Amino acid sequence: MARLRVSNFGLSLDGYGAGPGQDLEHPLGVGGEAVHAWAFGTRGFNAMHGQPGGETGVDDDIFAEGFDHVGAWIIGRNMFGPDRGPWGSDPWRGWWGENPPFHVPVFVLTRYAREPLALDGGNTFHFVTDGPQAALARALEAADGKDVRLGGGLATIRQYLQAGLIDELHLALAPTLLGRGESLFESLDAAALGYRCHRTVPGAGATHVYISRTG
Amino acid sequence: MARLRVSNFGLSLDGYGAGPGQDLEHPLGVGGEAVHAWAFGTRGFNAMHGQPGGETGVDDDIFAEGFDHVGAWIIGRNMFGPDRGPWGSDPWRGWWGENPPFHVPVFVLTRYAREPLALDGGNTFHFVTDGPQAALARALEAADGKDVRLGGGLATIRQYLQAGLIDELHLALAPTLLGRGESLFESLDAAALGYRCHRTVPGAGATHVYISRTG
Repeated sequence: MARLRVSNFGLSLDGYGAGPGQDLEHPLGVGGEAVHAWAFGTRGFNAMHGQPGGETGVDDDIFAEGFDHVGAWIIGRNMFGPDRGPWGSDPWRGWWGENPPFHVPVFVLTRYAREPLALDGGNTFHFVTDGPQAALARALEAADGKDVRLGGGLATIRQYLQAGLIDELHLALAPTLLGRGESLFESLDAAALGYRCHRTVPGAGATHVYISRTG
Repeated sequence: MARLRVSNFGLSLDGYGAGPGQDLEHPLGVGGEAVHAWAFGTRGFNAMHGQPGGETGVDDDIFAEGFDHVGAWIIGRNMFGPDRGPWGSDPWRGWWGENPPFHVPVFVLTRYAREPLALDGGNTFHFVTDGPQAALARALEAADGKDVRLGGGLATIRQYLQAGLIDELHLALAPTLLGRGESLFESLDAAALGYRCHRTVPGAGATHVYISRTG
């Protein structure tokens, strides 16, 4: 059955998925790169960005699994770009250039309507203004039996967690402290929502934990 | 050089070291046992409580290391007992019976003066009313060159972290979500205080991370 999955989501030891001060210069927030260092070092990440080299092993295998069997993505507007408010006459086209790494339809949550944006490599961005449930319904339909992967940012993941809509949440616990930033679990009672950790896999650059709903 | 260490400190994936509603029936807070399950299962923990059996391996080795080279403890009043306020005429004597597992002097932070309490096995509790710095000075002197181990509760550890007095913080990340409770890092910028994670060790029941100050 098709699932809504969060994969390869880096989290610091103090619970932050992004640093403070996210902007054009700091798309992951100040210091936020550290929670993704485990991924940046893998062969899979390098290959995806046209670079040779990188580590193989558990982290690389898990990084690759995050893209397996994914038929559509949902992302928040903050993951799509740094700008806010109405799109304007020359709107932002994503962080990823003309051939983004998704290669499937991507549904972007926003309050501002916009025509779909078709880039190379099967990357079409659809802008959804009627909320997370509607975005999930459209993404599941587009995924055609495959899973829907939920990207960031933190606010988007928290929104879907609160609604109990996430089937599996894979966190990569990075051996770093950010000190400040956007917290995943603060004031969000995932246990009461039925989420449990069912698997832990140690990697060289992160400890991977898998959380899903039970019962 | 003698250090102030936190050892074997269980933390949930959502950052809680104890559950909500700590009282006589729930000394670890509701659900708080889950963050210590990795320790409860070890041979060392069982032996300490006069029970046979238990797992050997990484978790057991690390549990034992937490007691190596420790010459004194500091604990908060909430770890010493469930009561609050003045001690009264028949004061609480600790959770641990007549032969507690410390076997060295234990300094209890409290606002209420009390004569030292000497129990069996080298367990003498000293009640310190002039604050964490004074407790540390007394504990270091009593430890006579060995380390001082800092127990809980969370408020006590946060207080020493904020003051930059902890030399090493060993967290056992338990594969559990508590949902609510006492957070270790919320609104506490450990990175800005100079703390870094320098070691990760995967165990069967928890992932062990070691945090210390640099520079």
